[in-house]
Amino acid sequence: MNAVQLIRNKREGKQLSADEIDFLVQSYTRGKIPSYQFSAFLMAGFLKGLDRKETAALTKSMLYSGIVIDLSSIKGRKIDKHSTGGVGDKTSLILAPVVAAAGVNVPMISGRGLGHTGGTLDKLESIPGFRTDVDLRKYKSIIKKCGAVLAGQTKEIAPADKLIYALRDVTATVESIPFITASIMSKKLAEGIDGLVLDVKTGSGAFMKRHEDALALADSLTHTAKAFGKRVIAYITDMNQPLGNYIGNWLEVYESIKILQGEKIDDLLELSLNLSGAMIHLGDKAKSIPEGIEIAKKMIESGKAFDKFLEIVKLQGGDVSFIKKPELYPKSKIREDIYAGKDGYVKEINSFELGMASIELGAGRFVMEDKIDPKAGIIFYPKIGQKVKKGELIAEIFTNKKDAVNHAKKKITDAVKISNKKIPPVKVIKSMVTYDLCALD
Amino acid sequence: MNAVQLIRNKREGKQLSADEIDFLVQSYTRGKIPSYQFSAFLMAGFLKGLDRKETAALTKSMLYSGIVIDLSSIKGRKIDKHSTGGVGDKTSLILAPVVAAAGVNVPMISGRGLGHTGGTLDKLESIPGFRTDVDLRKYKSIIKKCGAVLAGQTKEIAPADKLIYALRDVTATVESIPFITASIMSKKLAEGIDGLVLDVKTGSGAFMKRHEDALALADSLTHTAKAFGKRVIAYITDMNQPLGNYIGNWLEVYESIKILQGEKIDDLLELSLNLSGAMIHLGDKAKSIPEGIEIAKKMIESGKAFDKFLEIVKLQGGDVSFIKKPELYPKSKIREDIYAGKDGYVKEINSFELGMASIELGAGRFVMEDKIDPKAGIIFYPKIGQKVKKGELIAEIFTNKKDAVNHAKKKITDAVKISNKKIPPVKVIKSMVTYDLCALD
Repeated sequence: MNAVQLIRNKREGKQLSADEIDFLVQSYTRGKIPSYQFSAFLMAGFLKGLDRKETAALTKSMLYSGIVIDLSSIKGRKIDKHSTGGVGDKTSLILAPVVAAAGVNVPMISGRGLGHTGGTLDKLESIPGFRTDVDLRKYKSIIKKCGAVLAGQTKEIAPADKLIYALRDVTATVESIPFITASIMSKKLAEGIDGLVLDVKTGSGAFMKRHEDALALADSLTHTAKAFGKRVIAYITDMNQPLGNYIGNWLEVYESIKILQGEKIDDLLELSLNLSGAMIHLGDKAKSIPEGIEIAKKMIESGKAFDKFLEIVKLQGGDVSFIKKPELYPKSKIREDIYAGKDGYVKEINSFELGMASIELGAGRFVMEDKIDPKAGIIFYPKIGQKVKKGELIAEIFTNKKDAVNHAKKKITDAVKISNKKIPPVKVIKSMVTYDLCALD
Repeated sequence: MNAVQLIRNKREGKQLSADEIDFLVQSYTRGKIPSYQFSAFLMAGFLKGLDRKETAALTKSMLYSGIVIDLSSIKGRKIDKHSTGGVGDKTSLILAPVVAAAGVNVPMISGRGLGHTGGTLDKLESIPGFRTDVDLRKYKSIIKKCGAVLAGQTKEIAPADKLIYALRDVTATVESIPFITASIMSKKLAEGIDGLVLDVKTGSGAFMKRHEDALALADSLTHTAKAFGKRVIAYITDMNQPLGNYIGNWLEVYESIKILQGEKIDDLLELSLNLSGAMIHLGDKAKSIPEGIEIAKKMIESGKAFDKFLEIVKLQGGDVSFIKKPELYPKSKIREDIYAGKDGYVKEINSFELGMASIELGAGRFVMEDKIDPKAGIIFYPKIGQKVKKGELIAEIFTNKKDAVNHAKKKITDAVKISNKKIPPVKVIKSMVTYDLCALD
């Protein structure tokens, strides 16, 4: 096979065979074709597209560039969830204990904060002692013991993805649905899962701003999962406003504890129950999603989900005293309130700017070397459609960075648009996509 | 400026400014942006196109990556010709002496054989002693002395073109009209010319197989030349059959001598007179192309063109005894005839295959390291529309490679399609494109 000919074929919009795609990926990963050829292929693929077969083939090549974890020695279904990322999205911390409490294994490999969104690993590491860098042996033993593990990606998982992503990042070939699909699925399929629930975000705080793009990505992800024989359900969910009210690492752990202890936080609870219900259903512990949701509710009400969370934290080295008594957690030096500037209805929230403000306060990184302040962040109360009064408390900020306060406060204030007219609230779940018939039983 | 953002803009079909294109070209040429970014830009440009302004900007950046020769100290206009390359195309060897004899300077920088086509430098070097590697000082002094120079490209001429062409070659981004335009024009504009006649070939033996592509390239080349204030005329000419009858390096020098000595070889003479006429016109020695053609004819009839050729060969170190008495030139060890397989009219000639056959016989290179046999090649008689009889001599081959004979003979035989029906002959000149009003006076 000849790389130039394959690039030319893709340039002309021709379908590449699985072998041809594998040749390109393996050759690039092993340094046998230079990066300038692979980047030309990426740009041709970006502009001419990859169809479902090609996307599945790309996923497979990237998947088998590394190890695929075998969890067959562990009884029961293994189901994970993947979110495309949003502001205040802490559902992983809630789903893992809820779903594991219901008897479904949750082998979860997560990432760090990216752009304006937080990362599950950073959130977990705000719990003193919590270790996400577990090796394969420990990964399996933790699942075996408690039915869930919340781990970071190791070098053995889809190394081709890391190389290809780095090249996409510097060649303007990131925002391609086939490439995003292969990147996500190659890592998820390596976890040893039987099924996957996807949370594809859309709106101002999501990577996919437009609903049609989110739908196209959900379609591509579900078809690819199906091509690998996995059960799959995708939700398209709203990211025009932060999920829940807490943004920032420990703040999000804290809000997750509140949910696990039975507090009703409308959008966050609704989404957590739906995703849990779908996972429990795919994990064969419920005949339908609604039945799965009922089980999830019971796991929370009975305290089993919270106990499971304590168990996971303990097994991964975390200090459970802070989970049991969050009020013991260290406090930020600076805590300031933000008030509404006028009466009216919340019309729009720029979640992207809220995410950026929380990074400025210390909750995230601008460059890979930045240190995260686990306490930093924002509690943000308004929801679209909500009535607010001038002078009403709309947000609280937490930081140790004195210099960041004023700019962050302005960003947060400007992020909220208030209208005189009544505005309808937005639903957190927009639609669901599945091609796995069992999921619709 | 940020390379990723510029790649993204081109990917989205946006127009890049001259400064942005210059940033990419200069940064790449100086090793300040990596080849994988430049190749992503090339593929985005290939698929989304560059408009006239961008093409001129790219040409300018590539041109000024090296020296631009200043010939202002030499009296009179300096006019060159560029051909996109074809089989049997030896017009440069004819034009330079004809046009220089008419009093127009011809500063000609040529290339080597590429793919199935021969190169002017390789042809000239078949003349014992002929040196094409002249330095800048010598380049000027030869023009000053005899009004023409036939030189090879030096490292100082458009070094960016060399780097970019090498990258295009391995990233499937060669066949792009804007890139081809910038590559040709950056080198031609560096020669120190006032005007340029273009010979854009189309047909089975050309790089542009389709007439519309040749026309688009002619349009792009002429507009770019005009943007640099150069006089320009482009001809679209036929390459469905070899030009003249001789293919191979010394064989083509020999056929050029025949033309310069007044022999009538229909298509080759017609094209040579037209290109010469246009050059003489652009060089202000004729008020129109037809007048230029008349002057060109006189230069041949009077023997002035042949004398000029002897003068050029001598000044560039060549042994003129072979030009005066070509029969003294060394002979190939093997000489075989090829005969027509049936009666009929020549319907089609696969010039590409004839070019490949001549390379197999030793007249060209498959890889850069191959040595050329200057004597090797083909004399090929049929022209489209011509009546042939079974057993009639249609071609002669010349080679020292015994192993190549049978395969080349088969290629040549297969390259000629003979029909029972009468076939009209093809005209060598298909159309002319110019945006320089003076050229149409």
